[in-house]
Amino acid sequence: MKEIIAIIRMNKVNITKKALADVGVCGLHAIKVMGRGKLMVDFSILDQLGVREEIGGILADGLSGGTRLIPKRLLTILARDEDVKKIVDTVIKVNQEGNKGDGRIFIAPVIDAYRVRTAEKGEAAV
Amino acid sequence: MKEIIAIIRMNKVNITKKALADVGVCGLHAIKVMGRGKLMVDFSILDQLGVREEIGGILADGLSGGTRLIPKRLLTILARDEDVKKIVDTVIKVNQEGNKGDGRIFIAPVIDAYRVRTAEKGEAAV
Amino acid sequence: MKEIIAIIRMNKVNITKKALADVGVCGLHAIKVMGRGKLMVDFSILDQLGVREEIGGILADGLSGGTRLIPKRLLTILARDEDVKKIVDTVIKVNQEGNKGDGRIFIAPVIDAYRVRTAEKGEAAV
Repeated sequence: MKEIIAIIRMNKVNITKKALADVGVCGLHAIKVMGRGKLMVDFSILDQLGVREEIGGILADGLSGGTRLIPKRLLTILARDEDVKKIVDTVIKVNQEGNKGDGRIFIAPVIDAYRVRTAEKGEAAV
Repeated sequence: MKEIIAIIRMNKVNITKKALADVGVCGLHAIKVMGRGKLMVDFSILDQLGVREEIGGILADGLSGGTRLIPKRLLTILARDEDVKKIVDTVIKVNQEGNKGDGRIFIAPVIDAYRVRTAEKGEAAV
Repeated sequence: MKEIIAIIRMNKVNITKKALADVGVCGLHAIKVMGRGKLMVDFSILDQLGVREEIGGILADGLSGGTRLIPKRLLTILARDEDVKKIVDTVIKVNQEGNKGDGRIFIAPVIDAYRVRTAEKGEAAV
């Protein structure tokens, strides 16, 4: 069993949910997060303009300051090992616009799972 | 060390928290999530009615559409290995109503833990 | 790869974000959680006052009751193995006030990661 964690744009939750249901994956949970991926200041542009010292620090401050986290949705999907590839491919397919902020997926191990209603354990609970 | 992740009904957070405190587990965090477990359309009923083609698609659309995530609470509990069973049993006991939506629990490995106040590491930080 | 989960005070998100950016870590996500760490009733004080039976139960009820979860922020940071120590040290440094509630950090394994924009896999996606 694996936990698939996908951080996607807010406006992509429904289309992702639908695409996953279309490949037979119905169980997921969505959490509001404020986030940001990796950002880089391209200082070479500032150098060409000859303003690196003047505004480089301001830019860097902006990047590391308090204003840059943006709202995203974090999906968690509990999956059987054999379904992981299908789920990853589906999430990438419907979220890939080719822009920064398209999102990130990561896969974490799950040791055991339980269904509360029946107390079923293991793969039966996925 | 393990992370116990329990997805339960919104109205079960307090009783779960109390039941866990009663067995000596006081540390937990609750997160708002919108979620859904596994749903299945029983097409055989539609077949009996002779309406599968007419409304089967509509139903499936409904299931995979944008309206079905419901608010739940996700609890995370950092636990020592020897406390996992006690915590799982307690969460199941107070959340099991025998209905769909009672919830799911999964157990994830934790490599290390730190208490910020003291910088203690490992089991001492749990 | 590792997932670093840090539960910190609400008012520490910006300073933590800035400190992490200063050491080159820009990707993080913040989630609102309601939580509490380990609490203990010091019954010996009640014993000295001779009121353990009278108010011990009330106190214990208070602790296990519905009113004690407080808002915190849970940060998740996807990190390369070699960056984990730097990130943990940074989070402890800016969050350690020496008080209960300073927070907790835990490290979880990550099996794989993907960048949605490029479908890059593994360390390249971190």
